[in-house]
Amino acid sequence: MRNIKLIVEYDGTEFSGWQRQPRDRTVAGELERAIGKLTGEKIHLIGAGRTDGGVHATGQVANFHTMSTMPAERFQYALRFMVPRDISIRKSVEAPSSFHSRFDAKGKIYRYKLYNGRLPQALIRRYSCYFPFRLDEDKLLTACNSYVGKHDFSSFMARGANDHNVNKEIFRFDVKREGDMIDFVIEGDNFLRNMVRIMVGTAVYIAAGRLESNRIERMFEGRKRYLGGPTFGAEGLYLEKVLYSVEESE
Amino acid sequence: MRNIKLIVEYDGTEFSGWQRQPRDRTVAGELERAIGKLTGEKIHLIGAGRTDGGVHATGQVANFHTMSTMPAERFQYALRFMVPRDISIRKSVEAPSSFHSRFDAKGKIYRYKLYNGRLPQALIRRYSCYFPFRLDEDKLLTACNSYVGKHDFSSFMARGANDHNVNKEIFRFDVKREGDMIDFVIEGDNFLRNMVRIMVGTAVYIAAGRLESNRIERMFEGRKRYLGGPTFGAEGLYLEKVLYSVEESE
Repeated sequence: MRNIKLIVEYDGTEFSGWQRQPRDRTVAGELERAIGKLTGEKIHLIGAGRTDGGVHATGQVANFHTMSTMPAERFQYALRFMVPRDISIRKSVEAPSSFHSRFDAKGKIYRYKLYNGRLPQALIRRYSCYFPFRLDEDKLLTACNSYVGKHDFSSFMARGANDHNVNKEIFRFDVKREGDMIDFVIEGDNFLRNMVRIMVGTAVYIAAGRLESNRIERMFEGRKRYLGGPTFGAEGLYLEKVLYSVEESE
Repeated sequence: MRNIKLIVEYDGTEFSGWQRQPRDRTVAGELERAIGKLTGEKIHLIGAGRTDGGVHATGQVANFHTMSTMPAERFQYALRFMVPRDISIRKSVEAPSSFHSRFDAKGKIYRYKLYNGRLPQALIRRYSCYFPFRLDEDKLLTACNSYVGKHDFSSFMARGANDHNVNKEIFRFDVKREGDMIDFVIEGDNFLRNMVRIMVGTAVYIAAGRLESNRIERMFEGRKRYLGGPTFGAEGLYLEKVLYSVEESE
């Protein structure tokens, strides 16, 4: 069996997330159907990140096994008009048969786009979160910086979710403002459910003066979701890149 | 009666254009409903440009008459959550009672976004037109330049449309490429139905070698829609600005 690796972009707005579900429209479900049509097989697609409903991706990584003899690079073209328009395959390449897009991932980069203008804007509403209140830039930078390092992120996990390992490492948490748009770029080894959206929501609430400045520290110690700020909207979140060890990167 | 002027942005994807229609969802229809709810009046909204279904706007101008005593600048905030999320009011100001957003317009600026990469991209599909074939940049610039000036644009009008005056003036037709994205910026005194989309479609077809280089000249002389290139997709088109004489500009 061959192993094909895909780099996938999608507009998450009209999907119930990545992971295939019997009734809902999901990214993996749509891709499995399209690839299956192409190869005539039943396809099982493994995604590096199981993004939630509404979350976008510019660099999701996925892989599937196939008996097809089609050159790997042809998949991206052949599938071009077979996938729905809110999914696009940026790249298809041959992978070693042992490659597993999720288990082999060494880290991920997420982007969060926050629109901080006073009035909402129709043309960016699907692709950024709207928060019109004044933010203290210093407080925002300090809050985001305090996430960097190894911490117990239990307080930053969706209620009801569970993970055997709540200790994660954040490698960087950059904040860049251009006009009214703020881009957060977050790189880490692994992420809990809703973790990025709660981290951004909490940092922004601190910067808006709605939570005190030492709240993040208290959350690391207290290990309870209710200590945190809100889970910010999925519309601002992008899975931008999945990191692998050198040998497996393209 | 007071006269309120609005600057309006919208994502045209899910609208059957600007102009109110009995059954279809239109931008003016939705705005009239929202403003009517706010003031308790039956509102008649006049738009500077009657954009077609799917066409976007970042700077549409509209005006309406009202007996409301609300300060003009409050309308933009009051309407913020009363309009659907694919419409946003960028600005509301008091206008002279004689101001008519359409009749007083001296010109308009449109933008057309063309994505010229090889593979379609999910996240920009609603906001740009996809054309993956190689373009000769010199031919493209020459074609676009040849539109500038006063011409008979009959060949650049949708079939079935009619306009008592087919002589229009194009003040500028700029082309700017950044990576795989090409932005056309077109400024003119007035535009026929589908005119920008046919101008862009024809110029791009010339640059792709599908139409001969002197085709635009032949279209000006021949005055027939069938001489022209395709009407490119509405998803790439934006009404960016409406121009008024100095006294009426904000």
